[in-house]
Amino acid sequence: MSAADLMAVLLAGHLRYDFTAPGHPGNDHLIFSKGHATPLLYAMYRAAGVIDDRELLSFRRLGSRLEGHPTPRLPWVDVATGSLGLGLPAGVGLALAGQRLGEVARRVWVLCGDSELAEGSMWEAFEHASYERLDSLTAIIDVNRLGQRGETRHGWDTAAYARRISAFGWRTIEIDGHDAEAIGHAYAEAAGTTDQPTAIIARTMKGRGVAAVQDAEGAHGKPVPDAETAIAELGGIRNIRVPVRQPAAAAAAREAPAGNGSRPGLPRYECGENVATRTAFGEALAAVGGAREDVVVLDGEVSDSTRTEFFAKAHPGRFFECYIAEQQMVAAALGLQARGWVPFACTFAAFLTRAHDFIRMAAISRANIKLVGSHAGVSIGEDGPSQMGLEDLALFRAVHGSVVLYPCDANQTAALVDALAATRGIGYLRTTRGSTPVIYPPGEKFPIGGSKVLRASDADLVTIIAAGITVPEALGAADALAADGIAARVIDLYSVKPVDTQTLRTAAEVTGNFVTVEDHWPEGGLGDAVLAAFANGHRPPRLTKLAAHTMPGSATPAEQLHVAGIDAKAIEAAVRALTPAPSSRS
Amino acid sequence: MSAADLMAVLLAGHLRYDFTAPGHPGNDHLIFSKGHATPLLYAMYRAAGVIDDRELLSFRRLGSRLEGHPTPRLPWVDVATGSLGLGLPAGVGLALAGQRLGEVARRVWVLCGDSELAEGSMWEAFEHASYERLDSLTAIIDVNRLGQRGETRHGWDTAAYARRISAFGWRTIEIDGHDAEAIGHAYAEAAGTTDQPTAIIARTMKGRGVAAVQDAEGAHGKPVPDAETAIAELGGIRNIRVPVRQPAAAAAAREAPAGNGSRPGLPRYECGENVATRTAFGEALAAVGGAREDVVVLDGEVSDSTRTEFFAKAHPGRFFECYIAEQQMVAAALGLQARGWVPFACTFAAFLTRAHDFIRMAAISRANIKLVGSHAGVSIGEDGPSQMGLEDLALFRAVHGSVVLYPCDANQTAALVDALAATRGIGYLRTTRGSTPVIYPPGEKFPIGGSKVLRASDADLVTIIAAGITVPEALGAADALAADGIAARVIDLYSVKPVDTQTLRTAAEVTGNFVTVEDHWPEGGLGDAVLAAFANGHRPPRLTKLAAHTMPGSATPAEQLHVAGIDAKAIEAAVRALTPAPSSRS
Repeated sequence: MSAADLMAVLLAGHLRYDFTAPGHPGNDHLIFSKGHATPLLYAMYRAAGVIDDRELLSFRRLGSRLEGHPTPRLPWVDVATGSLGLGLPAGVGLALAGQRLGEVARRVWVLCGDSELAEGSMWEAFEHASYERLDSLTAIIDVNRLGQRGETRHGWDTAAYARRISAFGWRTIEIDGHDAEAIGHAYAEAAGTTDQPTAIIARTMKGRGVAAVQDAEGAHGKPVPDAETAIAELGGIRNIRVPVRQPAAAAAAREAPAGNGSRPGLPRYECGENVATRTAFGEALAAVGGAREDVVVLDGEVSDSTRTEFFAKAHPGRFFECYIAEQQMVAAALGLQARGWVPFACTFAAFLTRAHDFIRMAAISRANIKLVGSHAGVSIGEDGPSQMGLEDLALFRAVHGSVVLYPCDANQTAALVDALAATRGIGYLRTTRGSTPVIYPPGEKFPIGGSKVLRASDADLVTIIAAGITVPEALGAADALAADGIAARVIDLYSVKPVDTQTLRTAAEVTGNFVTVEDHWPEGGLGDAVLAAFANGHRPPRLTKLAAHTMPGSATPAEQLHVAGIDAKAIEAAVRALTPAPSSRS
Repeated sequence: MSAADLMAVLLAGHLRYDFTAPGHPGNDHLIFSKGHATPLLYAMYRAAGVIDDRELLSFRRLGSRLEGHPTPRLPWVDVATGSLGLGLPAGVGLALAGQRLGEVARRVWVLCGDSELAEGSMWEAFEHASYERLDSLTAIIDVNRLGQRGETRHGWDTAAYARRISAFGWRTIEIDGHDAEAIGHAYAEAAGTTDQPTAIIARTMKGRGVAAVQDAEGAHGKPVPDAETAIAELGGIRNIRVPVRQPAAAAAAREAPAGNGSRPGLPRYECGENVATRTAFGEALAAVGGAREDVVVLDGEVSDSTRTEFFAKAHPGRFFECYIAEQQMVAAALGLQARGWVPFACTFAAFLTRAHDFIRMAAISRANIKLVGSHAGVSIGEDGPSQMGLEDLALFRAVHGSVVLYPCDANQTAALVDALAATRGIGYLRTTRGSTPVIYPPGEKFPIGGSKVLRASDADLVTIIAAGITVPEALGAADALAADGIAARVIDLYSVKPVDTQTLRTAAEVTGNFVTVEDHWPEGGLGDAVLAAFANGHRPPRLTKLAAHTMPGSATPAEQLHVAGIDAKAIEAAVRALTPAPSSRS
């Protein structure tokens, strides 16, 4: 209710939106960063005539698309919100699509709460938007003073917000958020402002218009105590239909070009070369960007490390430097994909943990984004644990509907980058800092959900399952064991999710014993992915999981693999421990 | 080298620190938020005489405590840094310990990089520190213009930083960071400032003093090209020993009181009552806080939901409202634990993903912090997926050395809160929004690493393993199956990590078949924890993993459990599918 006047004025006179054609390229965007204000958002849809009373009354019920917080199950919602501090950052991505990628510069209106200004992600967004001069972006800040459990830090001190936001390079306008004329003027001013985004900081009253809850604590997220009285106070039952301004006839606006399906000229590497998968990723991404004009890349100020610098050089217009602000990077990607772009957002695997909440929310948005984490695992060497991604597989496997890929060589990497760009949904690619030998010829196919059996015979006693940096170690172990008469199957499980269930089950039937080896904490990574293939009542193999069990320090990459117990020697020892004879218990 | 002058002046005249007694209560704190500047930090230790040249030359080598980024393996380091944007937020926690908890207000000096000012977490810290009037805190910002791959957003525009930081309520001082006199004045001014923290914004030059790298791009994190020349340019080999100001004789300062081990008067609940575990958590936390004066609590503006409001009311002096800034909340906890306090940091389980990177770094800090996530799982009901913690078990299991607890009833919750407070390290407690029946009597023991076998007989064909909200469902399923002549063992696996390996292995021997059931995504949670008990070459059971497989929407809690396939009916069906006879394959 605090934002009802703000939204009424927007809907009735400023938003340009063809609700019957949510894909119209000239439509403005409206994001509820305060996602809990769905009663207001859905009331706007009702007033616009695109939902009816029957549907409105399904609010928060099983099967209804009118969920407690908005999701893109509704065609007018670009990104799911409900985790505070996400909507404005995503709005920056939508505005970037309009202003940096040559689309029509639709306006992007974002309704923000005052509580969520405590989130650092909001300030990453303020900084990003002013740096990029996103004058199509307007933040409407509903300063109703009260958070869910009491007053916010700044209460009704709208000047405190204005000082901060204008210091971040935005135009700020302070208004009474219940003064329709002031609201309209502010929107007009925002629309007329060039070269900088605008924040309208509106002093409002929570529960406005209903005495029982107006400006009251303890009423957050609860129904009003007496609905009949509230309706009467608000003017009685009405059936308002608001005509909404139509978008400009911009149907010819440049959209994200569809992936044209032409195969990129992927880089080719010769077997036996030593190439870091991060380098192959960077070269492949630049190539994919040449073949697909819908691919855009975002980086967290580490493009020389992630190797997105190759893309930046080849396709500068589609490269976004996000500086060290991983939440904003992922949120901008989220906004860009909502306009049909295929974003790759890249930093060290370790630092993607910063954006975990936004990745989680991206799944709720049914988003199409690709995350790439470099410097995975202890094998980075001397820099130490703060720079090592050792939980990224656990993080990304536990994202609903995700694809998780972990290549071991350069040609495989290139093929997977191509596959990732072509596959809708949330995809994660894990790359390695140091060089690894090229073991696959150029052009080899690596389907998502597949694996490669690198060593196999009917005499195999054990299956070694590796991915990425541990594949060469597994091959080394298998060769040493073979020299000793112990046949070990080796599987390169490059697709950690979805996992190649059939190949794993066959290997279990033949060998009965598995050794998994991963440069990751023991929890949630490769070993668990392997076991997931059997978690539907299938008889699982005996399994020894090799993974990093101790906190690493600084050391050379080879020393790190050794200390973690994931090098060829450790694999060999684990296989020997499994092979002599099953233990008496089993 | 850009910050060498800043740190030289600090060490020689302003820092008060007894390097021979790092635990001295009067010692200042010095945090390198730009953790990659370890060569400078370790040179300071060398100048202070606490490490020698031999050790200095072990930098970044296997076994050395002089890691690439600082960790508390060094007694003078409070918190591990190296993920940018963490040191200042943690410094706020250290300053809170001094100023809010009645300790001596030591000074807290934090060396920050300019690149890391893009991280939203820094702005959460600026906001938190000024709100709490932390005048003991000084941020020294090394504006050397260059990030790792080129110029920062604002380059040498120190005024851009000053505008932002002063808008956030800090005193700001802009200086030439190579002017020793100006630096000294700034430190003195900071020390003399009351009621607000101070930021010293120092314009510096990267690689200062070595022509080959000075103010040059592409030299980040690399050795100088010619060490001999560099040494000569810097004045030749010297052997400087800097006398450091000693702390005030504040040995009698109030410290975090040691946990006195007296048993708190935990709340007691009667069997058959229905109580939400979040409520039991809140009541138990208040009780533990009464018995242990070292317990402090932080909340992300949801204390009415997490139920930390009970602690806040009982012990207001030890309660910290962090508003909606989860990274800052966890970082403040990190700072507080470095002073011996036992912090519980609490919000919705879903929103702890915001702080994932800080939780990861807390493990590298070997920190003693407790995280509590409420509103876990689909069972929260109507609010929808944005509010549901469905990846928290995966997140916390993949934290090195963590403890992960998930109680199913009120008495168990109370006991686990007590145990968590008494156990060093990173602990996570997962609570449930809705009420669950009390099934354990008051006073029952629940050791960390344990489990409870709730149903068992020698005739058991299947073991059902549940935790939290799914325990009552599992009991319901077992009862229905028993009525049908199918004996099912039921284990309450409240300690998800460490897991009760012995009980699980025994159950596997007896029944051979497991059904795990969890209100969580299938990856990284309870089912994987169960399998981990067998991942050391032990013969695993056949297992069917029940977990949330589809993206939830809004619905009642019971509907959510049903749709997710984790209610009693689903468990019963899974047991029946496993029991008739092993499949032909197995």
